Amino acid sequence: MCELLGMSANVPTDICFSFAGLMQRGGATGPHRDGWGIAYYEGKGYRAVHDPQPSADSKLAQFMQSYSIKSHTVISHIRKANRGRVCLENTHPFSRELWGKTWAFAHNGQLKGIKKWPLEHYLPVGTTDSEYAFCWLLDQVRNRFPTPPRQRKQLWGFIEAQIREVAQLGIFNILMSDSHSLYTHCSTKLAWLTRQAPFGNAQLLDTGMSVDFAQETQPSDKVTVIATEPLTTNEQWQSLKNGQFTVFRQGKMAYQAES
Amino acid sequence: MCELLGMSANVPTDICFSFAGLMQRGGATGPHRDGWGIAYYEGKGYRAVHDPQPSADSKLAQFMQSYSIKSHTVISHIRKANRGRVCLENTHPFSRELWGKTWAFAHNGQLKGIKKWPLEHYLPVGTTDSEYAFCWLLDQVRNRFPTPPRQRKQLWGFIEAQIREVAQLGIFNILMSDSHSLYTHCSTKLAWLTRQAPFGNAQLLDTGMSVDFAQETQPSDKVTVIATEPLTTNEQWQSLKNGQFTVFRQGKMAYQAES
Repeated sequence: MCELLGMSANVPTDICFSFAGLMQRGGATGPHRDGWGIAYYEGKGYRAVHDPQPSADSKLAQFMQSYSIKSHTVISHIRKANRGRVCLENTHPFSRELWGKTWAFAHNGQLKGIKKWPLEHYLPVGTTDSEYAFCWLLDQVRNRFPTPPRQRKQLWGFIEAQIREVAQLGIFNILMSDSHSLYTHCSTKLAWLTRQAPFGNAQLLDTGMSVDFAQETQPSDKVTVIATEPLTTNEQWQSLKNGQFTVFRQGKMAYQAES
Repeated sequence: MCELLGMSANVPTDICFSFAGLMQRGGATGPHRDGWGIAYYEGKGYRAVHDPQPSADSKLAQFMQSYSIKSHTVISHIRKANRGRVCLENTHPFSRELWGKTWAFAHNGQLKGIKKWPLEHYLPVGTTDSEYAFCWLLDQVRNRFPTPPRQRKQLWGFIEAQIREVAQLGIFNILMSDSHSLYTHCSTKLAWLTRQAPFGNAQLLDTGMSVDFAQETQPSDKVTVIATEPLTTNEQWQSLKNGQFTVFRQGKMAYQAES
């Protein structure tokens, strides 16, 4: 299995604190030694860093923790390989362009038989079932909506239905984004919290680090963090339910539906 | 204008030395202050680092110079903006997936009227004429070859013809790769050299750095470096001719054609 970390914020926000916690689970406090990746959106801009090395020992991960990138949407992943060998092209998050937007995707779980499903526009570069599922999802969205629909909820409902199709094949905990919306689906395990005023202190579970968000934020800031397992010890994380599909935008939950 | 740097090698090779020279031209020894990017292929795997900050002052560029990534194909670019504002999504290299391969592209020059040309499968995320031209090129390749042709030269000849179409709109010095082949087109300025046994010492033009490649290589290594302007002072760089299209593979020139 793997672990996921996502962020949706209404102002460009530094993910370093949460990322520092997650990276420890890639070989130090957790067994996810088979690579890690992080994708940041800055407006429509997208940057992604991938490394097939264990994150807990990675110089690149250390650097990214010290290099403050302010982003409104982030997807990160640490990998414990089950399908697909350990190599750069199998390292999440995966990305593709649709409608002139960069879509990104990361997955925790396994899917049985997904590679028998036909693909059309998007093909996987690596050999994971995860990237294959992402290509299939984007194919469906592209075929149904050659151009973006006017009604966001029409898109969200369609994406939800496609995700439910895939989820029938196994475990499909995912984070996906088109830069503005952060889509999540929980098959077994995902937790989230929203940080907003009044901000307090947070203490990471996996390192001694703590941060006083009151010193780092403005009163109007809203930042939602989603992770496979809670990252802090003294905040109220809420578990998503099995089968729950949610969309976060601008730091807030914008849509949710249960199966 | 901008500056380009590319590498094709028959063994995974560290680009740090050449990259260190190029990065100085992004605000120190050259005026290309509007961002930089570098894309590395490792097998089918792809990683890209983008930064809209001047490379000469960039902590991320410094880190990438110290972080030895061994790659067989590299494309790098430093930007002096003419079309499209300075932001992450306008920072080269651009990438898209075709046939389950990640294609990357960087451009030096300007194209007049390219945005009137119709696009189908690939749409730009940013606003540069460069990314638009890349989308158009991949559209043509995809339409002509829904699956990769058996004969490489059939593909190369087709790509060459499409590049010549675009080049009629202005200046089109480019580097493009599908991970194995490095395609180049020279409208006005590109130089290259191949390092192979017997290896010697190389001295960077833009910094005091030098390297003795005899200490760093095996006798069978072949590494071709392509750049807008020669990067070293004591090696024989060859200028590509205006209108020259070349394909490098495994460190060697595999195809060339003149207009």
